[in-house]
Amino acid sequence: AALGTRKMEEYGRFLALLASTLLIGFVSVILSLVWVFHYREGLSWDGSPGEFNWHPVLIITGFVFIQGIAIIVYRLPWTWKCSKLLMKFIHAGLNTIAMILAIVSMVAVFEYHNAKNIPNMYSLHSWIGLTAVIFYSLQLFLGFAVFLLPFAPLHLRAVLMPIHVYSGLTIFATVIATALMGITEKLIFSLKNPAYSASPPEATLVNCLGLLLVIFGSLILWMASRPHWKRPPAENAKILRPIEATAEGTEVESTMTNSSNADKSDLRTNTEAARKQNLKFDEAGQRSTM
Amino acid sequence: AALGTRKMEEYGRFLALLASTLLIGFVSVILSLVWVFHYREGLSWDGSPGEFNWHPVLIITGFVFIQGIAIIVYRLPWTWKCSKLLMKFIHAGLNTIAMILAIVSMVAVFEYHNAKNIPNMYSLHSWIGLTAVIFYSLQLFLGFAVFLLPFAPLHLRAVLMPIHVYSGLTIFATVIATALMGITEKLIFSLKNPAYSASPPEATLVNCLGLLLVIFGSLILWMASRPHWKRPPAENAKILRPIEATAEGTEVESTMTNSSNADKSDLRTNTEAARKQNLKFDEAGQRSTM
Repeated sequence: AALGTRKMEEYGRFLALLASTLLIGFVSVILSLVWVFHYREGLSWDGSPGEFNWHPVLIITGFVFIQGIAIIVYRLPWTWKCSKLLMKFIHAGLNTIAMILAIVSMVAVFEYHNAKNIPNMYSLHSWIGLTAVIFYSLQLFLGFAVFLLPFAPLHLRAVLMPIHVYSGLTIFATVIATALMGITEKLIFSLKNPAYSASPPEATLVNCLGLLLVIFGSLILWMASRPHWKRPPAENAKILRPIEATAEGTEVESTMTNSSNADKSDLRTNTEAARKQNLKFDEAGQRSTM
Repeated sequence: AALGTRKMEEYGRFLALLASTLLIGFVSVILSLVWVFHYREGLSWDGSPGEFNWHPVLIITGFVFIQGIAIIVYRLPWTWKCSKLLMKFIHAGLNTIAMILAIVSMVAVFEYHNAKNIPNMYSLHSWIGLTAVIFYSLQLFLGFAVFLLPFAPLHLRAVLMPIHVYSGLTIFATVIATALMGITEKLIFSLKNPAYSASPPEATLVNCLGLLLVIFGSLILWMASRPHWKRPPAENAKILRPIEATAEGTEVESTMTNSSNADKSDLRTNTEAARKQNLKFDEAGQRSTM
């Protein structure tokens, strides 16, 4: 019973953190819209500054917010009753949406630059940003080929999983760093009279947006790297598909970070709790079988 | 014997990665000096641009390069024969040097700004940079109080260690992101005729410096988060100080990331190898007892 109480507390703490993270991500998207509509030229697709403005909005919506959710989607306790395969589709789907939005947002900048005869790809922001989009696409493609398609041997999956996790988190951090450079560039270029250095309201608003992106990223990395918040190895699947399920379990175990001895027992009891929860969901007859 | 060969390969791979990382960090410091001496006004301490120039040089030397080394200092296999306490002093010492250099580099900017009547603390770079320095100082102070001074109960150390590791890596990533913003600002402000957008040689050089900082940071994070490259639990110490040594072992185990089942057996065999190495060092009669 004491263990159950501790687990409920742990669950409550996760939910509180998740809610804060989603709120901060949502407020970031809103602030990007306020920036663009209240202080700038709004949104359009005609080579005007309104076309450029899609760039920050789509990057913050897709490449930061949606990518962040894609990273922690396996951590949501109420999805542990769903099959691992379904969760992989959701993870890959969210990342695909994020990639498409990132690419569209880059097209917006290139078209705007070309319309205004501004050179492309000269800034550190553009160098690192393009590199991040390329690595992100490679990561998505490789992840799809290795972890979603049924062809890769389990040994290969086990070897590549830690690399997949590391690349994913590093690319995510790099994307946020690139967004901060982009904000810096845009504020310097567009604020004249009063300049950025005079701290007009737009500068303060967008600086706050930048701070929120850092906090959002830090919270996502925290949730992704707590071992006791990981999806437990699939128990139900084990009964249905003994061989694959074991491999899936190993895959889950190898996904993330920081397994101390204390954490390991946490993981075990957590798995225990998840099992009980699974039973509860099964009783409700609502278990997805995909 | 096959295991021994695998461990030697693993050791070789670590050394190759470490050498690359140190080289990239070293080249970054050199590039910051080339930037400042070849393209800018050199170094001075008189309120001129030469005083500002201490800022990028000291940040890249101290807050990026030295902090990076401080993070991975427990990973160096030849230090595993040294006592954990000595390594903690080295870790804390390097971080203290990095903190001092970061603070001096901020003083240089404030003095330069004040001499030129440029406002302070208006940019996102300054907001996030100051926040990072404050958190870094707190982290150092707390780390010293909890992990170096002998007063904190072992339970508290075990609880705080994952937080210490997470904060350390997150602050490090934030520092690099802040450096990238600083590079962006400085290139936009100082390149006029030809402008940044015309890609003069200085722009290309400093963009490359920014890329190297990202690669350096990624390599440090990779080395810090591989569980099989962790310092093994202290075996010799266990014989000398049974109670503390066990706690130290737990501390080490809980330090970092990504313990899959496969990784766990890696860690075990690695510990085995380290034990043998320790014996070898003992035979050579060179074991430090501090």
